[in-house]
Amino acid sequence: MVSGIRVLVTGGSGFIGRHCIEALLARDCEVHAVSRRTPAWNAARLTWHQADLLQPRVFSRLLAECHPAHLIHSAWNTSPDYWTSATNLTWAARSIELLQEAQTYGVVRIVGIGTCAEYGLDHDICDERTTTMQPIGIYALTKYATQLLFNGTSGFEGHSVAWARLFFPYGMYDRPNKLIPYTIHQLLNGKPAMFSSGKQVRDLLFAPDAGEAIVALLFSTASGPVNIGSGIGVPVRDVALRIGELMGHPDLIRLGTRPTHELEAKRWVAAVERLNHEVGWCAVTSLEDGLRATIAAYARQHAAPPP
Amino acid sequence: MVSGIRVLVTGGSGFIGRHCIEALLARDCEVHAVSRRTPAWNAARLTWHQADLLQPRVFSRLLAECHPAHLIHSAWNTSPDYWTSATNLTWAARSIELLQEAQTYGVVRIVGIGTCAEYGLDHDICDERTTTMQPIGIYALTKYATQLLFNGTSGFEGHSVAWARLFFPYGMYDRPNKLIPYTIHQLLNGKPAMFSSGKQVRDLLFAPDAGEAIVALLFSTASGPVNIGSGIGVPVRDVALRIGELMGHPDLIRLGTRPTHELEAKRWVAAVERLNHEVGWCAVTSLEDGLRATIAAYARQHAAPPP
Repeated sequence: MVSGIRVLVTGGSGFIGRHCIEALLARDCEVHAVSRRTPAWNAARLTWHQADLLQPRVFSRLLAECHPAHLIHSAWNTSPDYWTSATNLTWAARSIELLQEAQTYGVVRIVGIGTCAEYGLDHDICDERTTTMQPIGIYALTKYATQLLFNGTSGFEGHSVAWARLFFPYGMYDRPNKLIPYTIHQLLNGKPAMFSSGKQVRDLLFAPDAGEAIVALLFSTASGPVNIGSGIGVPVRDVALRIGELMGHPDLIRLGTRPTHELEAKRWVAAVERLNHEVGWCAVTSLEDGLRATIAAYARQHAAPPP
Repeated sequence: MVSGIRVLVTGGSGFIGRHCIEALLARDCEVHAVSRRTPAWNAARLTWHQADLLQPRVFSRLLAECHPAHLIHSAWNTSPDYWTSATNLTWAARSIELLQEAQTYGVVRIVGIGTCAEYGLDHDICDERTTTMQPIGIYALTKYATQLLFNGTSGFEGHSVAWARLFFPYGMYDRPNKLIPYTIHQLLNGKPAMFSSGKQVRDLLFAPDAGEAIVALLFSTASGPVNIGSGIGVPVRDVALRIGELMGHPDLIRLGTRPTHELEAKRWVAAVERLNHEVGWCAVTSLEDGLRATIAAYARQHAAPPP
């Protein structure tokens, strides 16, 4: 149905960008992907553009080169201090310019990538339509402000905009310090994995599912923020313990050996009515299957000789 | 107390910028003002810089030239379609860059200019600390998003940021199509002034008071959004009728001859606790005195021969 449609993906070599590209290729789209680094992978119908979007006029050159009809903007600050870095502001400013350039070049549909951190802490459930937004810290604030600006222009010049508000995607290509990669890597190396109490409840989504959901959102008519989650909250401790069992090392899961961070939400769980009813999508992979697949993939990578 | 402090004012020839400059000069500050146009007025301790802030790198050049300690950023889109124009997005992006440049150049205190429209429609009272923000339209959205970004960086690099959320300043230098200038001009020309029902309640503030309030905020330690209003709600019809009486032409005030705009708030009234208690400022000019002064000033201008 969307076969042959040309889609530009910024942040194409990032965790989310990569899963979006895989979902787009599975739908036979023609994908143009932007990355600062030379990307390590190639595929049919995938064209890479090496560019630093923080530099001026880069995006208009890209648009002039490939004239995409659709755009997924997943590029953002990925420095280790991304939660507090002032570079988030630069990304907000550049994202606005990118939005305006995309309008100028006739892009008809844009999806920006947001975060459940935009909601702030300790909502029972995070609902795009009713929850009072209380973003905390410069990362969440800049994402939220960018969302307001993106969706404020939806309808301008005949284009429409949606905002994929991600909860907790997990899977291959994730940052190694994130909960699940960290746990798997520690256990693959026979080392203990250290956690806080693990009572925090999170909405986890298998990353290939997250890519599918974002692409489904791109090809839907939904506008504004749409949560990308499973709708199911799971305590972090259950996830850690299950990985321990699946990997045959429950003894290496050390709960309560780290402090719980003050600025951490007790619960971050998505309302998925918009995703289900307006995008027509729901999470298809169970947590059990997703964890098994992720462990297997990391284990293969771990066993492989260095390239 | 603040005598000799160097302050840069963007949008210096605009309605609010001009009243800020007058308040700064009254405090013996050294004022550098930016305007796209050649300004029509001069004063001791006031230096004009002609520049278009929408052009790249203009702001860093200005900062390098005058090295201000304090900054009031009142420049914004002033086109007649400012409420709906996509140029608001450009101003949001440029304002973020300006904020970052100001940090780089060691500006220690920044006040951005916001609007009560950030709150959205139909709150009983607009409170910076408790009201759920529901900005409607691209002007209000871009102002609100810029506020989030400005205040999100307060404390970065040792600088602090506040946001002057203006309600309804009135007085000299205002746009001629605004309620009070329109009414006065019509009556000065012996023509009828047409209004909707006028039941909308507004928080009016005499513009020289607004300039004083913004400057008081600049030299306070308050951070985040601070309402700039009188705290008193007045129905628009009462204001129109009072102008009619003061100008001896109550017959020319034609209420109910225009439709009430759907996207108009029934009430826009400021909570002034932050302004009163944290900035230590309150509106000093009564509506009666402010209207009299404004009518007198416009009448002098009307009577004067063209320059």
